[in-house]
Amino acid sequence: MFSPKFDELVQRLRILPGVGPKSAQRMALQLLARHRTGAQALAHALNDAVLHIQHCSVCRSLAESDVCDICASTSRDQTVLCVVESPADVAAIEQSGSFRGRYFVLGGHLSPLDGIGPEEIGIPLLLSRLQTEPIEELILATNATVEGQATAHYLQAAWQEASQQATTQSGRAMPLKITRIAQGVPQGGELEYVDSHTLSQALQYRLTVR
Amino acid sequence: MFSPKFDELVQRLRILPGVGPKSAQRMALQLLARHRTGAQALAHALNDAVLHIQHCSVCRSLAESDVCDICASTSRDQTVLCVVESPADVAAIEQSGSFRGRYFVLGGHLSPLDGIGPEEIGIPLLLSRLQTEPIEELILATNATVEGQATAHYLQAAWQEASQQATTQSGRAMPLKITRIAQGVPQGGELEYVDSHTLSQALQYRLTVR
Repeated sequence: MFSPKFDELVQRLRILPGVGPKSAQRMALQLLARHRTGAQALAHALNDAVLHIQHCSVCRSLAESDVCDICASTSRDQTVLCVVESPADVAAIEQSGSFRGRYFVLGGHLSPLDGIGPEEIGIPLLLSRLQTEPIEELILATNATVEGQATAHYLQAAWQEASQQATTQSGRAMPLKITRIAQGVPQGGELEYVDSHTLSQALQYRLTVR
Repeated sequence: MFSPKFDELVQRLRILPGVGPKSAQRMALQLLARHRTGAQALAHALNDAVLHIQHCSVCRSLAESDVCDICASTSRDQTVLCVVESPADVAAIEQSGSFRGRYFVLGGHLSPLDGIGPEEIGIPLLLSRLQTEPIEELILATNATVEGQATAHYLQAAWQEASQQATTQSGRAMPLKITRIAQGVPQGGELEYVDSHTLSQALQYRLTVR
Protein backbone atom coordinates (compact mmCIF):
# COMPACT_ATOMS: atom_id res chain seq x y z
CA MET A 1 0.00 0.00 0.00
CA PHE A 2 2.45 2.69 1.16
CA SER A 3 5.73 1.17 0.07
CA PRO A 4 7.29 -2.21 -0.81
CA LYS A 5 8.79 -2.57 2.69
CA PHE A 6 5.37 -1.88 4.20
CA ASP A 7 3.76 -4.57 2.02
CA GLU A 8 6.58 -6.94 2.95
CA LEU A 9 5.92 -6.37 6.66
CA VAL A 10 2.16 -6.92 6.20
CA GLN A 11 2.88 -10.14 4.31
CA ARG A 12 5.29 -11.40 6.99
CA LEU A 13 2.87 -10.63 9.82
CA ARG A 14 0.32 -12.97 8.24
CA ILE A 15 2.45 -15.93 9.33
CA LEU A 16 1.06 -15.34 12.84
CA PRO A 17 -1.90 -17.60 13.66
CA GLY A 18 -5.28 -15.89 13.33
CA VAL A 19 -3.89 -12.85 11.51
CA GLY A 20 -5.56 -12.10 8.17
CA PRO A 21 -4.76 -9.32 5.67
CA LYS A 22 -6.83 -6.69 7.52
CA SER A 23 -5.30 -7.27 10.95
CA ALA A 24 -1.80 -7.57 9.48
CA GLN A 25 -2.21 -4.11 7.94
CA ARG A 26 -3.58 -2.72 11.19
CA MET A 27 -0.64 -4.22 13.10
CA ALA A 28 1.92 -2.79 10.67
CA LEU A 29 0.35 0.68 10.82
CA GLN A 30 0.19 0.68 14.60
CA LEU A 31 3.77 -0.53 14.97
CA LEU A 32 5.06 2.18 12.62
CA ALA A 33 2.91 4.92 14.13
CA ARG A 34 3.35 4.28 17.81
CA HIS A 35 5.66 1.38 18.64
CA ARG A 36 8.85 1.68 16.60
CA THR A 37 11.17 0.73 19.44
CA GLY A 38 8.74 -2.04 20.43
CA ALA A 39 8.82 -3.35 16.86
CA GLN A 40 12.60 -3.52 16.98
CA ALA A 41 12.47 -5.27 20.36
CA LEU A 42 10.00 -7.77 18.87
CA ALA A 43 12.34 -8.38 15.91
CA HIS A 44 15.19 -9.00 18.34
CA ALA A 45 13.10 -11.36 20.49
CA LEU A 46 12.04 -13.34 17.41
CA ASN A 47 15.63 -13.83 16.24
CA ASP A 48 16.79 -14.64 19.73
CA ALA A 49 14.06 -17.23 20.29
CA VAL A 50 14.61 -18.94 16.93
CA LEU A 51 18.37 -19.11 17.49
CA HIS A 52 18.34 -20.27 21.11
CA ILE A 53 15.17 -22.25 21.79
CA GLN A 54 15.46 -25.91 20.87
CA HIS A 55 13.77 -29.15 21.91
CA CYS A 56 14.62 -30.66 25.30
CA SER A 57 16.56 -33.89 24.70
CA VAL A 58 14.65 -35.66 27.48
CA CYS A 59 11.00 -34.63 27.01
CA ARG A 60 11.03 -32.90 23.57
CA SER A 61 9.41 -29.76 24.99
CA LEU A 62 10.99 -26.33 24.33
CA ALA A 63 14.19 -25.34 26.13
CA GLU A 64 17.12 -22.94 25.87
CA SER A 65 19.57 -25.56 27.14
CA ASP A 66 19.89 -29.26 26.29
CA VAL A 67 17.51 -30.24 29.11
CA CYS A 68 14.46 -28.14 30.03
CA ASP A 69 13.81 -26.73 33.52
CA ILE A 70 11.08 -29.28 34.29
CA CYS A 71 13.22 -32.30 33.37
CA ALA A 72 16.22 -30.82 35.22
CA SER A 73 14.23 -30.08 38.38
CA THR A 74 14.84 -32.42 41.32
CA SER A 75 11.63 -31.36 43.07
CA ARG A 76 9.32 -32.85 40.42
CA ASP A 77 7.86 -36.31 40.93
CA GLN A 78 10.04 -38.70 38.89
CA THR A 79 7.52 -41.55 39.10
CA VAL A 80 4.75 -39.95 37.01
CA LEU A 81 5.11 -39.15 33.31
CA CYS A 82 2.45 -37.24 31.38
CA VAL A 83 2.35 -37.66 27.59
CA VAL A 84 1.00 -34.65 25.67
CA GLU A 85 0.86 -33.67 22.01
CA SER A 86 2.52 -30.25 22.10
CA PRO A 87 4.49 -27.77 24.24
CA ALA A 88 1.26 -25.73 24.40
CA ASP A 89 -0.32 -28.61 26.33
CA VAL A 90 2.59 -28.58 28.79
CA ALA A 91 1.94 -24.85 29.28
CA ALA A 92 -1.78 -25.44 29.82
CA ILE A 93 -1.24 -28.20 32.40
CA GLU A 94 1.47 -26.21 34.21
CA GLN A 95 -0.85 -23.22 34.36
CA SER A 96 -3.56 -25.39 35.94
CA GLY A 97 -1.04 -26.09 38.73
CA SER A 98 -2.44 -29.60 39.22
CA PHE A 99 0.50 -31.76 38.13
CA ARG A 100 3.89 -32.20 39.76
CA GLY A 101 5.34 -35.00 37.64
CA ARG A 102 7.22 -34.75 34.36
CA TYR A 103 6.24 -34.65 30.70
CA PHE A 104 6.85 -36.21 27.34
CA VAL A 105 5.93 -34.15 24.28
CA LEU A 106 5.03 -36.12 21.17
CA GLY A 107 5.05 -33.07 18.94
CA GLY A 108 1.85 -34.11 17.18
CA HIS A 109 -0.24 -37.23 16.81
CA LEU A 110 -0.08 -40.31 14.61
CA SER A 111 -1.15 -39.46 11.08
CA PRO A 112 -0.05 -42.15 8.61
CA LEU A 113 -1.47 -40.28 5.63
CA ASP A 114 0.84 -37.33 6.38
CA GLY A 115 3.80 -39.64 6.93
CA ILE A 116 3.73 -39.15 10.70
CA GLY A 117 4.40 -42.53 12.29
CA PRO A 118 5.69 -43.68 15.72
CA GLU A 119 9.28 -42.56 14.94
CA GLU A 120 8.21 -38.98 14.12
CA ILE A 121 6.38 -38.54 17.43
CA GLY A 122 9.26 -39.96 19.46
CA ILE A 123 7.68 -43.22 20.63
CA PRO A 124 11.02 -45.15 20.65
CA LEU A 125 12.50 -42.49 22.98
CA LEU A 126 9.40 -42.66 25.21
CA LEU A 127 9.54 -46.48 25.44
CA SER A 128 13.21 -46.43 26.36
CA ARG A 129 12.51 -43.84 29.09
CA LEU A 130 9.73 -46.08 30.47
CA GLN A 131 12.17 -49.00 30.63
CA THR A 132 15.10 -47.17 32.20
CA GLU A 133 13.54 -44.57 34.51
CA PRO A 134 11.66 -45.30 37.77
CA ILE A 135 8.32 -44.35 36.21
CA GLU A 136 5.29 -45.91 37.91
CA GLU A 137 2.43 -44.14 36.14
CA LEU A 138 2.04 -43.00 32.54
CA ILE A 139 -0.75 -40.46 32.04
CA LEU A 140 -2.01 -40.32 28.47
CA ALA A 141 -3.00 -36.67 28.01
CA THR A 142 -3.27 -36.48 24.24
CA ASN A 143 -6.16 -34.39 22.93
CA ALA A 144 -9.72 -35.71 23.21
CA THR A 145 -9.93 -35.78 19.40
CA VAL A 146 -10.13 -38.83 17.13
CA GLU A 147 -6.39 -38.52 16.35
CA GLY A 148 -5.45 -37.98 19.99
CA GLN A 149 -7.48 -41.02 21.10
CA ALA A 150 -5.93 -43.18 18.37
CA THR A 151 -2.45 -42.07 19.42
CA ALA A 152 -3.23 -42.88 23.07
CA HIS A 153 -4.47 -46.35 22.08
CA TYR A 154 -1.35 -46.94 19.99
CA LEU A 155 0.92 -45.90 22.88
CA GLN A 156 -0.80 -48.35 25.22
CA ALA A 157 -0.39 -51.22 22.73
CA ALA A 158 3.24 -50.28 21.98
CA TRP A 159 4.08 -50.37 25.70
CA GLN A 160 2.36 -53.75 26.12
CA GLU A 161 4.47 -55.24 23.35
CA ALA A 162 7.74 -53.64 24.52
CA SER A 163 7.25 -54.69 28.14
CA GLN A 164 6.38 -58.27 27.18
CA GLN A 165 9.62 -58.56 25.19
CA ALA A 166 11.61 -57.08 28.08
CA THR A 167 9.96 -59.44 30.59
CA THR A 168 10.76 -62.48 28.43
CA GLN A 169 14.40 -61.40 28.16
CA SER A 170 15.05 -60.36 31.74
CA GLY A 171 12.64 -62.69 33.46
CA ARG A 172 11.14 -59.95 35.67
CA ALA A 173 7.88 -58.10 35.08
CA MET A 174 7.76 -54.37 34.41
CA PRO A 175 4.82 -52.89 36.31
CA LEU A 176 3.44 -49.63 34.86
CA LYS A 177 0.08 -48.07 35.55
CA ILE A 178 -1.33 -46.39 32.43
CA THR A 179 -4.12 -43.80 32.82
CA ARG A 180 -6.05 -41.51 30.48
CA ILE A 181 -7.25 -38.00 31.46
CA ALA A 182 -10.98 -37.86 32.19
CA GLN A 183 -13.54 -36.76 29.63
CA GLY A 184 -16.81 -35.10 30.61
CA VAL A 185 -18.70 -31.85 30.85
CA PRO A 186 -16.24 -28.91 31.18
CA GLN A 187 -16.43 -26.52 34.15
CA GLY A 188 -19.26 -24.04 33.53
CA GLY A 189 -20.60 -26.21 30.73
CA GLU A 190 -24.36 -26.06 30.32
CA LEU A 191 -25.75 -29.47 29.39
CA GLU A 192 -28.01 -27.87 26.80
CA TYR A 193 -24.97 -26.74 24.79
CA VAL A 194 -22.65 -29.71 25.36
CA ASP A 195 -22.30 -32.05 22.36
CA SER A 196 -23.91 -35.46 22.63
CA HIS A 197 -20.65 -37.43 22.53
CA THR A 198 -19.29 -35.51 25.53
CA LEU A 199 -22.59 -36.00 27.31
CA SER A 200 -22.59 -39.74 26.71
CA GLN A 201 -18.96 -39.93 28.00
CA ALA A 202 -19.94 -37.91 31.06
CA LEU A 203 -22.78 -40.32 31.79
CA GLN A 204 -20.74 -43.45 31.11
CA TYR A 205 -17.91 -42.41 33.45
CA ARG A 206 -20.18 -40.94 36.14
CA LEU A 207 -18.70 -40.89 39.66
CA THR A 208 -20.32 -42.26 42.81
CA VAL A 209 -20.85 -39.29 45.12
CA ARG A 210 -22.07 -41.10 48.24
CA MET B 1 6.99 -20.68 30.72
CA PHE B 2 9.63 -22.71 28.85
CA SER B 3 12.58 -20.34 29.07
CA PRO B 4 13.38 -16.64 29.60
CA LYS B 5 13.74 -16.06 25.85
CA PHE B 6 10.35 -17.67 25.27
CA ASP B 7 8.74 -15.40 27.87
CA GLU B 8 10.51 -12.43 26.32
CA LEU B 9 9.07 -13.30 22.90
CA VAL B 10 5.54 -13.72 24.34
CA GLN B 11 5.88 -10.34 26.08
CA ARG B 12 7.08 -8.61 22.90
CA LEU B 13 4.29 -10.11 20.78
CA ARG B 14 1.74 -8.43 23.06
CA ILE B 15 2.68 -5.08 21.56
CA LEU B 16 0.61 -6.12 18.51
CA PRO B 17 -2.93 -4.72 18.58
CA GLY B 18 -5.55 -7.21 19.74
CA VAL B 19 -3.00 -9.74 21.02
CA GLY B 20 -3.47 -10.75 24.66
CA PRO B 21 -1.37 -13.16 26.75
CA LYS B 22 -3.10 -16.31 25.44
CA SER B 23 -2.74 -15.47 21.75
CA ALA B 24 0.83 -14.24 22.25
CA GLN B 25 1.74 -17.62 23.73
CA ARG B 26 -0.04 -19.45 20.91
CA MET B 27 1.80 -17.31 18.34
CA ALA B 28 5.21 -17.94 19.96
CA LEU B 29 4.61 -21.71 20.14
CA GLN B 30 3.45 -21.89 16.53
CA LEU B 31 6.38 -19.82 15.26
CA LEU B 32 8.88 -22.02 17.10
CA ALA B 33 7.18 -25.27 16.13
CA ARG B 34 6.46 -24.66 12.48
CA HIS B 35 7.66 -21.31 11.16
CA ARG B 36 11.22 -20.71 12.29
CA THR B 37 12.39 -19.30 8.95
CA GLY B 38 9.17 -17.29 8.73
CA ALA B 39 9.85 -15.87 12.20
CA GLN B 40 13.28 -14.74 11.09
CA ALA B 41 11.83 -13.21 7.93
CA LEU B 42 9.29 -11.36 10.10
CA ALA B 43 12.07 -10.07 12.34
CA HIS B 44 13.93 -8.83 9.28
CA ALA B 45 10.81 -7.15 7.83
CA LEU B 46 10.13 -5.41 11.17
CA ASN B 47 13.65 -3.98 11.37
CA ASP B 48 13.60 -3.01 7.72
CA ALA B 49 10.26 -1.24 8.00
CA VAL B 50 11.21 0.67 11.16
CA LEU B 51 14.51 1.79 9.66
CA HIS B 52 13.25 2.81 6.22
CA ILE B 53 9.60 3.86 6.49
CA GLN B 54 9.19 7.51 7.48
CA HIS B 55 6.52 10.16 7.10
CA CYS B 56 6.01 11.78 3.69
CA SER B 57 7.17 15.39 3.95
CA VAL B 58 4.21 16.57 1.84
CA CYS B 59 1.19 14.66 3.21
CA ARG B 60 2.58 13.06 6.43
CA SER B 61 1.48 9.57 5.32
CA LEU B 62 3.99 6.68 5.35
CA ALA B 63 6.74 6.51 2.71
CA GLU B 64 10.15 4.95 2.10
CA SER B 65 11.41 8.09 0.35
CA ASP B 66 11.01 11.75 1.30
CA VAL B 67 7.79 12.03 -0.74
CA CYS B 68 5.23 9.20 -0.94
CA ASP B 69 4.05 7.62 -4.20
CA ILE B 70 0.67 9.34 -4.09
CA CYS B 71 2.14 12.83 -3.62
CA ALA B 72 4.81 12.16 -6.26
CA SER B 73 2.30 10.86 -8.81
CA THR B 74 1.50 13.20 -11.71
CA SER B 75 -1.69 11.33 -12.58
CA ARG B 76 -3.51 12.22 -9.35
CA ASP B 77 -5.86 15.19 -9.29
CA GLN B 78 -3.89 18.10 -7.78
CA THR B 79 -6.99 20.21 -7.18
CA VAL B 80 -8.62 18.00 -4.52
CA LEU B 81 -7.11 17.39 -1.09
CA CYS B 82 -8.59 14.90 1.36
CA VAL B 83 -7.77 15.36 5.06
CA VAL B 84 -7.75 12.15 7.12
CA GLU B 85 -6.67 11.24 10.63
CA SER B 86 -4.28 8.35 9.93
CA PRO B 87 -2.41 6.41 7.22
CA ALA B 88 -4.93 3.60 7.83
CA ASP B 89 -7.65 5.95 6.53
CA VAL B 90 -5.59 6.61 3.38
CA ALA B 91 -5.38 2.83 2.91
CA ALA B 92 -9.15 2.44 3.40
CA ILE B 93 -10.03 5.20 0.90
CA GLU B 94 -7.47 3.94 -1.63
CA GLN B 95 -8.91 0.43 -1.34
CA SER B 96 -12.40 1.82 -2.03
CA GLY B 97 -11.00 3.09 -5.34
CA SER B 98 -13.30 6.11 -5.27
CA PHE B 99 -10.83 8.98 -4.88
CA ARG B 100 -8.22 10.24 -7.35
CA GLY B 101 -7.01 13.35 -5.51
CA ARG B 102 -4.30 13.64 -2.88
CA TYR B 103 -4.23 13.38 0.91
CA PHE B 104 -3.15 15.13 4.05
CA VAL B 105 -2.68 12.95 7.13
CA LEU B 106 -3.19 14.70 10.47
CA GLY B 107 -1.78 11.78 12.45
CA GLY B 108 -4.57 12.01 15.04
CA HIS B 109 -7.21 14.51 16.11
CA LEU B 110 -7.23 17.58 18.34
CA SER B 111 -7.10 16.53 21.98
CA PRO B 112 -6.08 19.49 24.19
CA LEU B 113 -6.14 17.38 27.36
CA ASP B 114 -3.46 15.09 25.88
CA GLY B 115 -1.42 18.06 24.69
CA ILE B 116 -2.36 17.49 21.06
CA GLY B 117 -3.02 20.89 19.51
CA PRO B 118 -3.02 22.27 15.93
CA GLU B 119 0.81 22.11 15.68
CA GLU B 120 0.93 18.41 16.58
CA ILE B 121 -1.55 17.44 13.85
CA GLY B 122 0.24 19.51 11.19
CA ILE B 123 -2.36 22.23 10.65
CA PRO B 124 0.25 24.95 9.86
CA LEU B 125 1.68 22.72 7.09
CA LEU B 126 -1.83 22.05 5.77
CA LEU B 127 -2.74 25.77 5.70
CA SER B 128 0.45 26.63 3.86
CA ARG B 129 -0.27 23.90 1.29
CA LEU B 130 -3.78 25.31 0.80
CA GLN B 131 -2.30 28.77 0.15
CA THR B 132 0.48 27.71 -2.23
CA GLU B 133 -0.94 24.76 -4.19
CA PRO B 134 -3.73 24.91 -6.81
CA ILE B 135 -6.19 23.17 -4.47
CA GLU B 136 -9.86 23.85 -5.24
CA GLU B 137 -11.59 21.47 -2.86
CA LEU B 138 -10.71 20.35 0.64
CA ILE B 139 -12.54 17.19 1.72
CA LEU B 140 -12.72 16.81 5.49
CA ALA B 141 -12.60 13.03 6.00
CA THR B 142 -11.80 12.86 9.71
CA ASN B 143 -13.64 10.13 11.63
CA ALA B 144 -17.36 10.51 12.35
CA THR B 145 -16.54 10.60 16.08
CA VAL B 146 -16.90 13.55 18.46
CA GLU B 147 -13.14 14.21 18.24
CA GLY B 148 -13.09 13.83 14.45
CA GLN B 149 -16.02 16.23 14.07
CA ALA B 150 -14.40 18.78 16.40
CA THR B 151 -11.16 18.57 14.42
CA ALA B 152 -13.08 19.08 11.14
CA HIS B 153 -14.82 22.16 12.59
CA TYR B 154 -11.53 23.54 13.82
CA LEU B 155 -9.92 23.05 10.40
CA GLN B 156 -12.75 24.93 8.70
CA ALA B 157 -12.41 27.86 11.16
CA ALA B 158 -8.62 27.89 10.87
CA TRP B 159 -8.84 28.12 7.08
CA GLN B 160 -11.41 30.93 7.27
CA GLU B 161 -9.09 32.98 9.46
CA ALA B 162 -5.96 32.25 7.42
CA SER B 163 -7.64 33.05 4.11
CA GLN B 164 -9.10 36.31 5.45
CA GLN B 165 -5.64 37.45 6.53
CA ALA B 166 -4.17 36.49 3.16
CA THR B 167 -6.97 38.29 1.29
CA THR B 168 -6.44 41.48 3.32
CA GLN B 169 -2.72 41.39 2.58
CA SER B 170 -2.80 40.50 -1.10
CA GLY B 171 -6.08 42.08 -2.00
CA ARG B 172 -7.36 39.00 -3.88
CA ALA B 173 -9.78 36.39 -2.56
CA MET B 174 -8.75 32.75 -2.06
CA PRO B 175 -11.61 30.54 -3.19
CA LEU B 176 -11.70 27.06 -1.62
CA LYS B 177 -14.61 24.67 -1.50
CA ILE B 178 -14.68 22.76 1.80
CA THR B 179 -16.72 19.55 2.02
CA ARG B 180 -17.32 16.88 4.68
CA ILE B 181 -17.80 13.17 3.87
CA ALA B 182 -21.44 12.09 4.14
CA GLN B 183 -22.88 10.45 7.23
CA GLY B 184 -25.75 8.01 7.07
CA VAL B 185 -26.78 4.38 7.15
CA PRO B 186 -23.86 2.15 6.05
CA GLN B 187 -24.22 -0.28 3.12
CA GLY B 188 -26.10 -3.36 4.34
CA GLY B 189 -27.15 -1.54 7.50
CA GLU B 190 -30.52 -2.61 8.84
CA LEU B 191 -32.40 0.36 10.27
CA GLU B 192 -33.43 -1.69 13.27
CA TYR B 193 -29.80 -1.99 14.38
CA VAL B 194 -28.51 1.44 13.37
CA ASP B 195 -27.95 3.84 16.30
CA SER B 196 -30.37 6.73 16.61
CA HIS B 197 -27.80 9.46 15.95
CA THR B 198 -26.85 7.89 12.61
CA LEU B 199 -30.52 7.49 11.78
CA SER B 200 -31.27 11.14 12.55
CA GLN B 201 -28.28 12.19 10.38
CA ALA B 202 -29.49 9.95 7.57
CA LEU B 203 -32.94 11.55 7.72
CA GLN B 204 -31.63 15.11 8.03
CA TYR B 205 -29.32 14.76 4.98
CA ARG B 206 -31.76 12.73 2.88
CA LEU B 207 -31.30 12.99 -0.87
CA THR B 208 -33.98 13.86 -3.43
CA VAL B 209 -34.36 10.84 -5.67
CA ARG B 210 -36.73 12.30 -8.25
